[in-house]
Amino acid sequence: MQKLNETIRKIERVDYSLAEKTQKRLDALTKPQGSLGRLEELAKQIVEITKNENPSTKFKVIFTMAADHGVTEEGISAYPREVTPQMVYNFLRGGAGINVLARHALARVVVVDMGVVCDLEPYPELLIKKVNYGTKNMTKGPAMTRKEAIKSIESGIEIFEKEFGKGISIAGTGDMGIGNTTSSSAIASVITGKPVEDMTGRGTGIDDETLYKKIAVIKRAISTNKPNAQDAIDVLSKVGGFEIGGLAGIILAAASRRLPVVIDGFISGAAALIAYRLDPKVKDYMIAAHCSVEKGHRVILDYIGLRPLLDLDLRLGEGTGAALGISIVEAGIKILTEMATFQSASVSQRVGK
Amino acid sequence: MQKLNETIRKIERVDYSLAEKTQKRLDALTKPQGSLGRLEELAKQIVEITKNENPSTKFKVIFTMAADHGVTEEGISAYPREVTPQMVYNFLRGGAGINVLARHALARVVVVDMGVVCDLEPYPELLIKKVNYGTKNMTKGPAMTRKEAIKSIESGIEIFEKEFGKGISIAGTGDMGIGNTTSSSAIASVITGKPVEDMTGRGTGIDDETLYKKIAVIKRAISTNKPNAQDAIDVLSKVGGFEIGGLAGIILAAASRRLPVVIDGFISGAAALIAYRLDPKVKDYMIAAHCSVEKGHRVILDYIGLRPLLDLDLRLGEGTGAALGISIVEAGIKILTEMATFQSASVSQRVGK
Repeated sequence: MQKLNETIRKIERVDYSLAEKTQKRLDALTKPQGSLGRLEELAKQIVEITKNENPSTKFKVIFTMAADHGVTEEGISAYPREVTPQMVYNFLRGGAGINVLARHALARVVVVDMGVVCDLEPYPELLIKKVNYGTKNMTKGPAMTRKEAIKSIESGIEIFEKEFGKGISIAGTGDMGIGNTTSSSAIASVITGKPVEDMTGRGTGIDDETLYKKIAVIKRAISTNKPNAQDAIDVLSKVGGFEIGGLAGIILAAASRRLPVVIDGFISGAAALIAYRLDPKVKDYMIAAHCSVEKGHRVILDYIGLRPLLDLDLRLGEGTGAALGISIVEAGIKILTEMATFQSASVSQRVGK
Repeated sequence: MQKLNETIRKIERVDYSLAEKTQKRLDALTKPQGSLGRLEELAKQIVEITKNENPSTKFKVIFTMAADHGVTEEGISAYPREVTPQMVYNFLRGGAGINVLARHALARVVVVDMGVVCDLEPYPELLIKKVNYGTKNMTKGPAMTRKEAIKSIESGIEIFEKEFGKGISIAGTGDMGIGNTTSSSAIASVITGKPVEDMTGRGTGIDDETLYKKIAVIKRAISTNKPNAQDAIDVLSKVGGFEIGGLAGIILAAASRRLPVVIDGFISGAAALIAYRLDPKVKDYMIAAHCSVEKGHRVILDYIGLRPLLDLDLRLGEGTGAALGISIVEAGIKILTEMATFQSASVSQRVGK
């Protein structure tokens, strides 16, 4: 718990002390004031987060964390559990959606085994932070111990710190784990207080019958474990997952290092809820990449108060939306740092209308 | 008129004959079916447009066309008319918003003088297709002659054909011209049949008083000229602009070459309306990059039936939204062409749920 407490202690409030100065600078650029809308907002936010008036975009790093979920025993996913390790190998060989979109955004993908059910073959690019061999079936008791929940978050922090040494300008989150929309719906329902039905979607694409079962399974998990909505660690341990804890750690660590973190979809959103409950100050360090098709995601974003950048009907996870979002954030930073001013370009200012 | 007629004659219907085949290919990629949402839709659309199962993204070209508007005499813009040539120089020196975002998208910007009011200094990168030295004040008579309207569209076609020789994989549109939201609102109101009030926004940022004047000016231009909504050339000549005609030419030429064209904001939308009225088959070749803050833009998109990719509160023009949109289109194509399949990556398929 020490590492977690230390990390939270280091998180400062984003104070917007550079807001006026940055706004003036944006208004001096050769465009009507405010005409680049959210790109300008992003530029301002990143200046405030980093306290760097010319934020770097050099090191874009997406953390894609994988783990398995004991609740898959209940038959709530369209895919068998072995897909989790198979997809991890796919990430490592560069063939997955996240690899394609991260290359497109010139971002690096850090692949982490947070708790896949089997031992994975070693790959130079694979980081092993296995908290355990998958979580337990949360309908029968807690998904993990409290100690494991803390360890998953602290492992995320350790991963971030390790990569921070190599350079991070903008971080992104991503997930892989068959069964993890079930866990995320449970977390989101408990923390936001919204009915399970409103938080539960079709995940990888289940039919109506399986959706009803999934909702019943989540309700059973909540009634069996009675997670305390005020205690994020309790929620994570009872109905969470190791990759979700790990991503919460990434978010907290990014905030503690004054770095922006671009949040992917629904599972990353559940991790954001855990991090936000542990310290609401993380909110201003987070940028929501997109709004997922998974219906609970909108509820999560509204609860935290994040406005997504993109709405492209995505529901893959892995960090795919984060990769696209990072590219938009980078565009915003470049507007601030690369555009000419009215003065430097000898362009006339507006007349008084 | 010959070049225009020939170009329209070459435009084929997008027949979606490869839809099933492409869908099967997308469904074989290592992701739940449809989970990359609009990226998958884009990939399918580009395959159909190009009839190339592995569409290229190598040459991304944004056509940014500039011209002046006689209606600026009426005092409807927040910026003086000299900003048009000043911004063209800014484009040529690489300091404008479009330059920053085109570099970000690895796109090339083709800058065209379609009718700036003064003679511009020569730059190796500047293409001169001046139809005239600005349009006439449309409140007093037609903005241009019918011959000039045709010439502006055909000049756009010529520009496209010239650049096509160097290579175009994806085209984008962009505009510069003080006064051109006024012209665009007039075009949009005439063609869609919606009231001028619903089509008129604050452009570069005018106050309430100027907005009311702008609406009155547009109404006056329409009542003076009585453009025939069924005749796009008539609308363009009476209340249009040379850059708008040029962009209509770009759109028609892209469709005639079976290439996708990413439409920027409101002014590009007015050009899209002209092209669409000349040949509705262009619709399937167009991709709407974003929805502008300029309120008439949504009406234009709905009228043609285009769903914008982005909603980032942009209202700069120049092709800035198109640059961001092109990057999303490219991401979609890369999903199709770069992702591993379940088979190649040895990932298990879904079970029967």
